[in-house]
Amino acid sequence: MMHPEPIMDIAHLGHLELLTPKPEESLRFFVDVLGMTESGRKGDSVYLRGWDDYERYSVQLTAAKTSGLGHMAFRARSPQALQRRVAALAGSGYEIGWLEGELGHGPAYRCHDPDGHIVELYYETEWYDPPAELKPSLKNQAQRYPARGVNVRRLDHINCLAADIKANRIFFDEYLGFRLTEQIVLDDGTEAAMWMTCTNKSYDFAYSRESHGIKGRFHHLTFALDCREDILRAADIFLEAGVHIETGPHKHAIQQTFFLYVYEPGGNRVEMANAGARLVLAPDWKPIVWTEAERKKGQAWGLKTIESFHTHGTPTLEEMKATGAL
Amino acid sequence: MMHPEPIMDIAHLGHLELLTPKPEESLRFFVDVLGMTESGRKGDSVYLRGWDDYERYSVQLTAAKTSGLGHMAFRARSPQALQRRVAALAGSGYEIGWLEGELGHGPAYRCHDPDGHIVELYYETEWYDPPAELKPSLKNQAQRYPARGVNVRRLDHINCLAADIKANRIFFDEYLGFRLTEQIVLDDGTEAAMWMTCTNKSYDFAYSRESHGIKGRFHHLTFALDCREDILRAADIFLEAGVHIETGPHKHAIQQTFFLYVYEPGGNRVEMANAGARLVLAPDWKPIVWTEAERKKGQAWGLKTIESFHTHGTPTLEEMKATGAL
Amino acid sequence: MMHPEPIMDIAHLGHLELLTPKPEESLRFFVDVLGMTESGRKGDSVYLRGWDDYERYSVQLTAAKTSGLGHMAFRARSPQALQRRVAALAGSGYEIGWLEGELGHGPAYRCHDPDGHIVELYYETEWYDPPAELKPSLKNQAQRYPARGVNVRRLDHINCLAADIKANRIFFDEYLGFRLTEQIVLDDGTEAAMWMTCTNKSYDFAYSRESHGIKGRFHHLTFALDCREDILRAADIFLEAGVHIETGPHKHAIQQTFFLYVYEPGGNRVEMANAGARLVLAPDWKPIVWTEAERKKGQAWGLKTIESFHTHGTPTLEEMKATGAL
Amino acid sequence: MMHPEPIMDIAHLGHLELLTPKPEESLRFFVDVLGMTESGRKGDSVYLRGWDDYERYSVQLTAAKTSGLGHMAFRARSPQALQRRVAALAGSGYEIGWLEGELGHGPAYRCHDPDGHIVELYYETEWYDPPAELKPSLKNQAQRYPARGVNVRRLDHINCLAADIKANRIFFDEYLGFRLTEQIVLDDGTEAAMWMTCTNKSYDFAYSRESHGIKGRFHHLTFALDCREDILRAADIFLEAGVHIETGPHKHAIQQTFFLYVYEPGGNRVEMANAGARLVLAPDWKPIVWTEAERKKGQAWGLKTIESFHTHGTPTLEEMKATGAL
Repeated sequence: MMHPEPIMDIAHLGHLELLTPKPEESLRFFVDVLGMTESGRKGDSVYLRGWDDYERYSVQLTAAKTSGLGHMAFRARSPQALQRRVAALAGSGYEIGWLEGELGHGPAYRCHDPDGHIVELYYETEWYDPPAELKPSLKNQAQRYPARGVNVRRLDHINCLAADIKANRIFFDEYLGFRLTEQIVLDDGTEAAMWMTCTNKSYDFAYSRESHGIKGRFHHLTFALDCREDILRAADIFLEAGVHIETGPHKHAIQQTFFLYVYEPGGNRVEMANAGARLVLAPDWKPIVWTEAERKKGQAWGLKTIESFHTHGTPTLEEMKATGAL
Repeated sequence: MMHPEPIMDIAHLGHLELLTPKPEESLRFFVDVLGMTESGRKGDSVYLRGWDDYERYSVQLTAAKTSGLGHMAFRARSPQALQRRVAALAGSGYEIGWLEGELGHGPAYRCHDPDGHIVELYYETEWYDPPAELKPSLKNQAQRYPARGVNVRRLDHINCLAADIKANRIFFDEYLGFRLTEQIVLDDGTEAAMWMTCTNKSYDFAYSRESHGIKGRFHHLTFALDCREDILRAADIFLEAGVHIETGPHKHAIQQTFFLYVYEPGGNRVEMANAGARLVLAPDWKPIVWTEAERKKGQAWGLKTIESFHTHGTPTLEEMKATGAL
Repeated sequence: MMHPEPIMDIAHLGHLELLTPKPEESLRFFVDVLGMTESGRKGDSVYLRGWDDYERYSVQLTAAKTSGLGHMAFRARSPQALQRRVAALAGSGYEIGWLEGELGHGPAYRCHDPDGHIVELYYETEWYDPPAELKPSLKNQAQRYPARGVNVRRLDHINCLAADIKANRIFFDEYLGFRLTEQIVLDDGTEAAMWMTCTNKSYDFAYSRESHGIKGRFHHLTFALDCREDILRAADIFLEAGVHIETGPHKHAIQQTFFLYVYEPGGNRVEMANAGARLVLAPDWKPIVWTEAERKKGQAWGLKTIESFHTHGTPTLEEMKATGAL
Repeated sequence: MMHPEPIMDIAHLGHLELLTPKPEESLRFFVDVLGMTESGRKGDSVYLRGWDDYERYSVQLTAAKTSGLGHMAFRARSPQALQRRVAALAGSGYEIGWLEGELGHGPAYRCHDPDGHIVELYYETEWYDPPAELKPSLKNQAQRYPARGVNVRRLDHINCLAADIKANRIFFDEYLGFRLTEQIVLDDGTEAAMWMTCTNKSYDFAYSRESHGIKGRFHHLTFALDCREDILRAADIFLEAGVHIETGPHKHAIQQTFFLYVYEPGGNRVEMANAGARLVLAPDWKPIVWTEAERKKGQAWGLKTIESFHTHGTPTLEEMKATGAL
C-alpha cells in the first residue's frame, strides 16, 4: 500500500507579530542595528522588513505591556490550499476564525496551536514596492541592499516554547502538513524539541519544551544572513552597539545552523543564522532523533549550551507577574 | 475564477549522466580537485557524490566517444506523483519508456525534451550509507566533510542548450510542473534563455539558446558551495591544479549567482556557485524578464560575458564532426 | 664582505592628499559609501579616516580644479630617523623644504620624486581621539566600527604613474630606504612597474609607467578590508550606489592582492584590497621579476586586464587640457 | 631630549621546536589535518612548513619523553644585527652559546629567557625550494597551496608560560628589542600576560603567567590563516577528524585575534588565528593595558575563558611527574 502523499498547502513562514514593552528602543534596534526597513504603521504596530523579504513586511512590531509573540503567520500555496487547511481545522478545537483588514495581506484564518500560540494562515499578499530611493539595481531583488548595520536578509524561522512538544508536533503535521526534520527525544521517551519545515529549508520553525509549564511563550525569531562571515561581523556590530550577546557565534549540532543570539531592547531573543547551502531536498526525509546524551555534548564544536538558553523566554516571568498573568 | 494549483510532483534534480572521452582524467578531476567521492562503478560508468548529496550519487560519469549529457534525472515527490507525470506524458510524443536496473534508484521513466535531451523521472532511491571511514561526526550529515580540494557540497543545477527555448519551457511547465523564475526575451520576442525550478532554489535547471542550431547539447553542471569565499578558494585551487578557468569568480545579474566556470578534462563546463541565502519562497513568483539591452550590460559588477560562454557546449562541434554526428 | 644594512627609517604610509573637482560629491562617496569618518576641516580640505587608522586622518580631500594627488606622506620611525632622511636628501636635487602647521601632524619635510610627485616626511603626529559616540568597545581599536557602507578599515597603499620607473625606484631605495618586492621588466629591459615596501606589507606603494609621457599623475589609492568577502560585499554596495566599477573583484597575479577598482565622483581611482595573511617577513626578500609575457597572461584567475587600467590616471588628460596643463 | 631609537635587529619569528611523546601521531596531525608539508628529517626531528613559510621549515617536530617547547628561533635582520644582539647578551647571564649544523639555517646563537625557555637567533637561512609537484602557479608564492585539511598558511606566533612575566618582558625588550603592544596588569600591580612584536604584526609572541610556579612551560603555537571563514572551516575539519577542540572559534578582546584552540596528539595546544588586516604600523605604539576586571569580562563577544586555558601547558604536570621533573 502506498503512503499518503505529503500535504504541500503551506508555502512558507510569512511574518510574525512581536510584542515589545519598549517600542521605540526596539524599533531603533531593528532599523539601526539590524538594518531593517520600516514599511508601514498601523495602530500600535510598526511593520518591518529585511531587504530580501518579498512581501511588504516580515515583522510586525507591536507596543504591548510585555514582550513575546503576538502571532505567527504562514502563507498558503494557493487559495485552494488555504481553503483546504481551514476545512481540515474545522471541528479540531483549535479554530479561532477569519480576520480581515490586516495590513499587507488578505483575509487570514486564525487558529491556535495546543500550547496557545496564535497561528495565522493567508494567501493574498502585498508584494513590496520600494520607493525610488530603495529601488535595487538588480530587478530580481526586492529592495536595495541597505549597507547599514547587520543587514539582515530575510526572516528565516521562529522558535516557540511549549509545555507538550509532541502535541504541537502532531498539530502542525496533521492539520497543516509540516514535516519533522529533527527532534530531541529524552531517555524517558518524551520529546524535548522539534524542528519542522514546509519548504526546502531544514526548518521553518522549532519548538522547545518550556521549563516552567507556562503556555504560549516565545523563544526567538531568526533572520537569515548570507554567510558565516556576515554573522561574525554582526557580532562585532552588536558589541559596538551595546547589544546583549547571549551566546555565539557557534555552530549548532542540531540542524548545523551557524548561530548568534542577542536580546533586543524589548527582551525578545533574536538570532542571526546561516546554514550555508544546506537544504532538505528529499521528499521523504527521515527525521534525525537526538538523544539526551547527545544533547548534553553541547554544540557542534564543543560550546556548552548557556543556561539562559533553557530558561529565558518571552514574556519573561517577571513581566507575567507584573501584569498578573502569573 | 481561481487559478489552477501548482503541480508539486517533482521534488528535485537527482543526478545527471555526464559523458567524457577522457574518463580517467575526468575522474581524477572530480575526485582529487573537486573533492567528490566515488560511490559505485557499473559498466562504463563511475558514480560520484558531493559530501551533502543524500542519495548514493549525483553524477554518473560515463566513458564515451564525446563529451556531453547522457541524461538528467529528477526525483518525484511520491510514487503517486511519479505515476501522475507518466500519465501526463502519455501521448505527448516525448515518451521513451520505463527503465529498470539502474544503479542506485528504482524504476525510471524516460522521456525527452523538445530538443532531444533525455529526462528521467524516478521515485525509489538508495540513500547513501557511508563506509566507516566516511561516517560524519554529526548524524544529520550524509558523509564526512572530505577536506580535499574544492570540497563541492552537492549538485545544484544543470544548464542545457536548446534550439527552441520556448518549446522547452512549455514542456517543463506543462508536463512536469516546473515554474519559470527568470528568462531572457530578445527584442524580436524570441526567448534566449530560461531558468526553472521545482524547489525553493531559484532554479534547478536553465536552458540557453544553442547558437548553431544543433540539438541535444549541454552547457554546464553546477555544484553548490557554502559561501563566496569557498568559490574564491576554489579558483586558487583550480589555478594550482592547472584547470582551465573560463570566467569568474563574479556575480551573475540574472539569478544573482556567484559563479566560477571551469572545463573538466573531458571538455564539459563545470560551475561552482553560491546564491547565499537567496530562496524563492513565493508560491506565485512573478518571472523576471531580462531584455536584450539588459543582457548586454554584462554581469552584475560589470564583467563582460566571455565569448566562449555563448559558443562552447558539449559535445563540441569538433567531437561531433569527428564522430560523424555533424 | 657584509652587505650594507637595510635603512629602517620610514615607518609607514601616513596619508595622502587627494584632489577633487567635485568636493561635495567626493566627500559623500568617502563618508556614505566607503564608511569613512570626517575628522577635520581646514581651508579647502576635509580630513577623513578609516576606523582602524590610528592617526587623525589618512586622506586629506582637497577641492581643486582637477583630480589627482596633492602629496603623499610617510611617517618616520623616530625623530632621528626623520633627520637622517632629510640629511640624505640634502643636495639630491629633490629637496623642497620644511613645512609647518599642517593639520594633525608636526613639521614635515617635503621633497619630490623624479617624476614630480610631492613626498612628505614627518614624525610627530596626532593620535585620533574619538568623540564619545565613536568610542570603540574594545580599547585596542582606534574608533568604533561604523557599520555603514563599505566600512574601509585603513589606508593601505597608493599607486602613482611615472615616466621613468627605474629612476623612481632608485630614488625611493637610496634616499628613503624602501625595499623592492616585485617589478615588471619588459623585453627591452625597461621597467614597467614596481612595488616597494617599508613595512611587512608586501607593498606600501606602487608605480606604473605613464603611457603618455606626462609627469606627476596618479593611478589609485587603496584601502585595506579584512577579507575577500568584505570586498565582494563592497561590490554589491557600489552597484547599489551607482558607483562606477572599473574592474574586479579578482585576484592580481602580482602581489596576489584581491582587488576591486572604482572611480570616486571626482574621477580618482580607488581600490578595495585584501592580501589575506600575506606578509613579507624576510629581511632579504628577493624581488620577484615579472616578464612582458607573464604580464600578458592577465590576472591570477585569467581575467584580462581592462584597457582603462593602463590609460586612466588623474588628473585626466581632459582636465589637463581644460586647465592648460597640457 | 630625544628618546632612544627602537632596536630593529630581529626580523621575525623563524621557527620553533615542538616536543612530542607521540611523534607519529603528531606528524599525521600536522600533515594530514593541518595540511603542512614535510621538508626534512634529521635525528629525532621531522621538519614541517606551511605553504607560505618562505624558509625551509617553521616547525621542528622532535620525538621526546614529554610534550613542550624545545626552542624558539628568531631570524635577525642582518648579519650585523645578529652580532649586535649577541654582543648585547654578553655578560647578561642568559647566554648559552653558538650552535652550528642545524638543518636549514646557519650558525645560531642560543640564550635562555629568565624563565628558562631556549631562544635561538640566526641570520643565514635556507629558502624553501619546492620539488616539481609542489611548485606554485604564481612565482611570488613559496609553495603550491595544498588543498588538504586546514591548509595552515604560515607560523604566526607562539605563547609561553612564565613565572615572572615582567622579568621576561624586560629581557625581550632590552636584549632583543621587542616592543610591548598589549599586557594584563592585575590589581596588585603584577603582570599576568604580555604580547610583544618585532614586526608589524601586533605580536610575534605572548607570555602568560604559569599558575603552578613551574618554569619553562609552553602554552601554544599559532598558525595564520587568511580569513575567519578559514578558521570556521578548520573547526568543521577538526570535528570530523576527532581532534580535541578546547575553545573557539571566537574573538579575543585582547589583540582582537579570531581564535580556535585544539590539542595535537602529543598534547601541545595549537591555535588557528586570524587578525584580518590589523597591523601595528605606529612606530611608537602605546601599549594597551588590560585590568583584572576587564579580563574577567571574557572574550570579545562574551565567551567565558575556559578553565583549561589557564591551567593546561606543556609539558603537562603528569608528564613532568612521570619523568621525574616534578
